[in-house]
Amino acid sequence: MNIQDFRDLERLVEAKDFKTVKEELPLFQDADIADLLDDLNREHVILVFRSLPKDRAAEIFAYLPGDKQEYIVGGITDQEVGSIIDQLFVDDAADFLEELPASVVKRVLQHASPETRKLVNQFLKYPPESAGSIMTAEFVDLKKDMLVSEAFARIRRTALDKETVYTCYVMDANRRLEGVVTVKNLFLEKDDAVIGDVMEKNVIFAHTIDDQEVVAQLFARYDLLSLPIVDHENRLVGIVTVDDVVEVIQQEATEDFQIMAAMAPSERPYLKTSVFKLAKNRIMWLLILMLSAMITGSILGKYEAAIVSMPLLVTFIPMLTDTGGNAGSQSSTLVIRGMALGEVSLADGGRVFLKELGVSGLVGAALAVVNFVRLILMYPGDYLVAFSVSLALFATVLLAKTVGGLLPLVAKAMKQDPAIMAAPVITTIVDALSLIIYFKVVDALLL
Amino acid sequence: MNIQDFRDLERLVEAKDFKTVKEELPLFQDADIADLLDDLNREHVILVFRSLPKDRAAEIFAYLPGDKQEYIVGGITDQEVGSIIDQLFVDDAADFLEELPASVVKRVLQHASPETRKLVNQFLKYPPESAGSIMTAEFVDLKKDMLVSEAFARIRRTALDKETVYTCYVMDANRRLEGVVTVKNLFLEKDDAVIGDVMEKNVIFAHTIDDQEVVAQLFARYDLLSLPIVDHENRLVGIVTVDDVVEVIQQEATEDFQIMAAMAPSERPYLKTSVFKLAKNRIMWLLILMLSAMITGSILGKYEAAIVSMPLLVTFIPMLTDTGGNAGSQSSTLVIRGMALGEVSLADGGRVFLKELGVSGLVGAALAVVNFVRLILMYPGDYLVAFSVSLALFATVLLAKTVGGLLPLVAKAMKQDPAIMAAPVITTIVDALSLIIYFKVVDALLL
Repeated sequence: MNIQDFRDLERLVEAKDFKTVKEELPLFQDADIADLLDDLNREHVILVFRSLPKDRAAEIFAYLPGDKQEYIVGGITDQEVGSIIDQLFVDDAADFLEELPASVVKRVLQHASPETRKLVNQFLKYPPESAGSIMTAEFVDLKKDMLVSEAFARIRRTALDKETVYTCYVMDANRRLEGVVTVKNLFLEKDDAVIGDVMEKNVIFAHTIDDQEVVAQLFARYDLLSLPIVDHENRLVGIVTVDDVVEVIQQEATEDFQIMAAMAPSERPYLKTSVFKLAKNRIMWLLILMLSAMITGSILGKYEAAIVSMPLLVTFIPMLTDTGGNAGSQSSTLVIRGMALGEVSLADGGRVFLKELGVSGLVGAALAVVNFVRLILMYPGDYLVAFSVSLALFATVLLAKTVGGLLPLVAKAMKQDPAIMAAPVITTIVDALSLIIYFKVVDALLL
Repeated sequence: MNIQDFRDLERLVEAKDFKTVKEELPLFQDADIADLLDDLNREHVILVFRSLPKDRAAEIFAYLPGDKQEYIVGGITDQEVGSIIDQLFVDDAADFLEELPASVVKRVLQHASPETRKLVNQFLKYPPESAGSIMTAEFVDLKKDMLVSEAFARIRRTALDKETVYTCYVMDANRRLEGVVTVKNLFLEKDDAVIGDVMEKNVIFAHTIDDQEVVAQLFARYDLLSLPIVDHENRLVGIVTVDDVVEVIQQEATEDFQIMAAMAPSERPYLKTSVFKLAKNRIMWLLILMLSAMITGSILGKYEAAIVSMPLLVTFIPMLTDTGGNAGSQSSTLVIRGMALGEVSLADGGRVFLKELGVSGLVGAALAVVNFVRLILMYPGDYLVAFSVSLALFATVLLAKTVGGLLPLVAKAMKQDPAIMAAPVITTIVDALSLIIYFKVVDALLL
């Protein structure tokens, strides 16, 4: 193979050697071709895209990031765009059109088939990150009274246009879901068995408006390859396939990592995101947290007299606030992740509180003892200082962990993303709380 | 249905009403039955497990957590255990046996078939979290010279024991992988087509010793349902199926969330983990970080004189260290996540450095300006204080982001998990650095 990376491809295009491009590019996987296109100089993208085999162009198009899709649509004819839209699975078409300005969508859809147009328009109405927004309409539907041999014939006749053929859906006359049958089941049955007798009637499904995270949890729990999605009248309107769910799971986790580190979430890979865009995603939360930290500073300001009279007190502050922040983040991280996996819900508030109380008691006591011993060794005889600092540490850990465990649930109850209540916010809150505790203790015991 | 939750089941067992249990329990999905068993009183688990339909017992067993599996094995006969092991897919059998003491494994395997015993023993040798450890041996193999109709006959004959039948693998006489063909492809071909002509020869595969994260990346990139795994002589030894990959992706993300929040990783759901175990997972890192924070405290101790002469200086410290910590964690989080997704590698060190330098320049300048204005408004006329604090802030953000972006790569280079270099460690390091910067600036400009 001559083409190793996008630079080779670039060179071939510059040399106008489209014969080699047409011969070698199809040897790559669709996802890899999309990657090559994404890295190519803009002026070459359209040329290479047009040289792709017609039957793979739509699939490769679906792998491209939104900005490249938009660029290509601007450079090819409306007829070409219409034919891509027709060939795309409807979930991919809706994904792509979602990002475009309404006027462009209208123009593009005029050149798609009426059937595609109707479907896509319907799909565009589902809320973002809902089951409806990630489902596709291309599934195999069977009837209860079909024989296994008839089912096989139907699958073979329609397989080409289906996103998956391995799970087939049995519907009644009103398109209500009656059962599912997998191709593996069909393989194991006799040709003259009746679908209604061999189908699984106990079907796992989701609603169009369910969150995609709920869909992902169902796939993980029941080891599914696809999941039927029904509308508010329980009619089967689409299916979600496992490849899209793998993407959803990766994306949802990435989004949580970003939100939990106080950033605006972004889907583009780190190295492909511009410095300006990265800075934009990060600045807002840093500003909010910086201004919040000033409150903590003003608490210190209130105790200036104590600090001047006993400057040693200041040296324990980083240990106290850092430990509090870390202890709180541990708890909030576990609860946030538990909620994302569907293992912890709002109703578990009481159990979370009791668990964190118990854990913080154990952990706080252990840390306080180690800290006390350390202080006695460093400042022999200063028992009261060692005791005060250790007591403040114990109280800080207790408070940090219960607050850290409960705040994600509070966020959820207020319809906010629980992931906001992670390390940065918890640290800022616990910093202030731990200083108040510290100086109250110091005030009572040392001054 | 009478059984709504494990309490109903408990009641039925206590009333010795195994007729109802046997009637109603099979109406649940395997994963749900496993959940009911997991919640049940220990003394009832074996009774209910024995009442399960024989053909589903192994599958349900595979869904149980390790401690419950071990408990059941202790309570049923060796023959029963042997039959479960025989029925389990070899990856599930190896997963379960991995957790048991060697003596128990030996005893259990004696009652499995010689074939199973050999396979399981081979699978137990693969390193944890490798492709080999999550693959299974039950796949459909075809020969190049078979007809499509012969392939269908072979699939139907062997489907029952295969973990997936939807992708079939074509091997030569030495078990080297020659191609793959999906059942969807077969459906679209004529019955007399030859497998060698219709198979895909450009096969994506992984090696037994590849990390499971690499396997997950291949699934996500190429939308796979299964992936062939070859040994060091390129012989096909197993396949990984997408349901296991969904689990791997969830687990790897959960593990990273836990490590990044300074905890020992644990697979058990939060609410099902005991207070004692949760405390144990959290205490070690809190101790290490607490002792490290004392270094930061001692830096403050060195500047006691400065603090006493100008106590106002202390009030800016939380803002400075918190902002530095948050800025650094943002960078390290993006790099750690990028590495987990395979988007960032060691070779990208230079690019990461330049990106973080650019981002921190922009972000640091913006924060410094806001901070300067705030200080001028709060302390009118104190231009030099405002300037010193803002300069220290700018330098802190610059350093925090470059250190935060690079440390995960350093960890990787030292064969450590990059996720260690997240918020808690970064914050501790940046705290110390920011205080040194702050007092150097203050020393030079204010004192």
